[in-house]
Amino acid sequence: MAEKKKSDEKTTVAHDKLVTMGREMVQEINMSESPSFLTPVRSRSNIKSDPDTGALYLGGSKETRTFVHVSQAKKFMQTVAIASKLKSFLEQGLHTSIRGLYYQLKFSIGEDVDEELFSEQSESNPLIEDLEASLDLKREDFNLSTDRKGVVAGNMTIKDKFGGDESIIDAAKQGRSGWMIPSDVDNGMEFVDIDADYVLVVEKDALWQRLNEDKFWKKNNCILITPKGQASRGTRRLIRKLADKKIPIYVFTDCDAWGWYIYWAIKTGSMNLAYLSKSLATPEARFIGVTMSDIEHYDFLKKLTITAKEVDIKRAQEMLSYPWISKHKQWVDELNIVLKTKKKIEQDALQGQRLTFVGDYVKEKITSGEILP
Amino acid sequence: MAEKKKSDEKTTVAHDKLVTMGREMVQEINMSESPSFLTPVRSRSNIKSDPDTGALYLGGSKETRTFVHVSQAKKFMQTVAIASKLKSFLEQGLHTSIRGLYYQLKFSIGEDVDEELFSEQSESNPLIEDLEASLDLKREDFNLSTDRKGVVAGNMTIKDKFGGDESIIDAAKQGRSGWMIPSDVDNGMEFVDIDADYVLVVEKDALWQRLNEDKFWKKNNCILITPKGQASRGTRRLIRKLADKKIPIYVFTDCDAWGWYIYWAIKTGSMNLAYLSKSLATPEARFIGVTMSDIEHYDFLKKLTITAKEVDIKRAQEMLSYPWISKHKQWVDELNIVLKTKKKIEQDALQGQRLTFVGDYVKEKITSGEILP
Repeated sequence: MAEKKKSDEKTTVAHDKLVTMGREMVQEINMSESPSFLTPVRSRSNIKSDPDTGALYLGGSKETRTFVHVSQAKKFMQTVAIASKLKSFLEQGLHTSIRGLYYQLKFSIGEDVDEELFSEQSESNPLIEDLEASLDLKREDFNLSTDRKGVVAGNMTIKDKFGGDESIIDAAKQGRSGWMIPSDVDNGMEFVDIDADYVLVVEKDALWQRLNEDKFWKKNNCILITPKGQASRGTRRLIRKLADKKIPIYVFTDCDAWGWYIYWAIKTGSMNLAYLSKSLATPEARFIGVTMSDIEHYDFLKKLTITAKEVDIKRAQEMLSYPWISKHKQWVDELNIVLKTKKKIEQDALQGQRLTFVGDYVKEKITSGEILP
Repeated sequence: MAEKKKSDEKTTVAHDKLVTMGREMVQEINMSESPSFLTPVRSRSNIKSDPDTGALYLGGSKETRTFVHVSQAKKFMQTVAIASKLKSFLEQGLHTSIRGLYYQLKFSIGEDVDEELFSEQSESNPLIEDLEASLDLKREDFNLSTDRKGVVAGNMTIKDKFGGDESIIDAAKQGRSGWMIPSDVDNGMEFVDIDADYVLVVEKDALWQRLNEDKFWKKNNCILITPKGQASRGTRRLIRKLADKKIPIYVFTDCDAWGWYIYWAIKTGSMNLAYLSKSLATPEARFIGVTMSDIEHYDFLKKLTITAKEVDIKRAQEMLSYPWISKHKQWVDELNIVLKTKKKIEQDALQGQRLTFVGDYVKEKITSGEILP
């Protein structure tokens, strides 16, 4: 067995939870009971949303996964195999992706049993979610790396312990590129110093590059993040952690279906990750724009709107049906402009008259407080 | 007019070329001729490939874009409008994306003429390519930022002058995340120090994270890059520049249609960027794997192959029809195994037995020289 190389306390918690889970199963077997574990139901029926903030979370329904059960025996064995692999990753102090885990399972399990326990990765993914939900931890806590997307710059220093090394990352000294937000922003990573009046999350990388060139984050003492479209788990988690430090979070997207979705996923969590909303959602986030009513304040934008697509119209209608949105007159008014004019506007359009206007727009919005909840 | 803020010599070249282009047009007008410019034909008919290396390049066909021509007048005006905008971006020392350029055109042109000169961005994109090809420069040289994708770590120090600041980026001190490869790796950026025996380009970010955790680049004195799938322009350009420094380039992908495509696009360039192959393609690149014949050397991989899809089979057949591939027995043999077994293998599978095997595999390949051309 590999030597233990626990990287920090969190990893120990994950390891302990896996060990406890296994011990309980052994006890059940010793008592001639079927080994089992309890996990929250993650299907739509058990996904609730806070009527006030819209934050998604799981309701109280739980289900038992048990070995001695015709339809569950295989899945149960698979879950135990996954838990065993995760335990070994933690003990080795090594990370891999869910694809790497899949191949580990495919290799080591197939050796001893006739039937291949895992023939497709789609079989292992929901079982990883079972473990995350059941043990109330994220896959990142079990040394599973996730897709990286998103970049950050600003007055933020991070101590990064990784692979046995320690690096100090200064997000203020990353030049034109910024620091890529990693898969795991919890384990082995700590904020040494943060000096920021707010966090600005910009949907598009092109706009992030524009603001970074203007030294927007330096001049305005903020942290500049782009999720590069839909936010990855690491980016959502970083935003949540910055909000935990009581730094206001402002989100700046296109005024269209996709832009709104990106905002609400950061704010309330998303359906398929509802079981992790506590760690990944940031209900404190506020919406800077762009909005169709910006046209009234900034005349040059009038000719830069574009025709809304069916998906934008449908999404605007859907949003109006959510109580946590329809209770805000500002959102109702904005969405109604889109529905009435059948027009939308992109954040890129702010550059139409003058490239550096993008930063002025953000500043004016924050100063005036004309920000949507 | 904004004050000139030329960032370096390259920018001056781009600016000078635009000015010269404009002056020549004025001369033509003064001589009562139709203003015009010459650009290489970029259609398939003029895309050639070196039968030896496969490197794509444009043939000698050129075409004249001229103003006094029923079908060209609008496009010509649009191109001149774009050239004028690019000149102003260079003079302002500011960057934007092609989407930002599109909105600038939409705003400023629509003001004075009845008809909107640009109604869709699809109209401006090919005209930017006209200018790149005609002036023999890249859009990045005209302060157009492009999509960023790709990460680098290794013993490489970069001086980055951007937005009036100067940063020193040490790609050896980026912790778990690496440095995101920027859109433009030429203008205002220089290599201060590079210490590397070779460059390893790993298709998948998950494998890059695996190797980075093992400090592979440190232990083996190499530069570790992932394009995160298909390589962005910035990543291709960085690889080209590293090859210019006589550092060997090794590419490590899945053994499937997509993996092969990523390799050949880095090596020979791609069809739609054939006019930039000189700057973006790296014919010196060599292919590490994975290959189906790896199974013979590494027994544990036998059970980790997966069924090839139609697209993989078709691509393998296509590749065998290219003279610059079919002349290499190694490639012919590899592709024939895929065609015969109808199996493929992913680089992730190398983790099946032991997570740290990935690095051992790369080392063994490079040491043994069992590398494909």
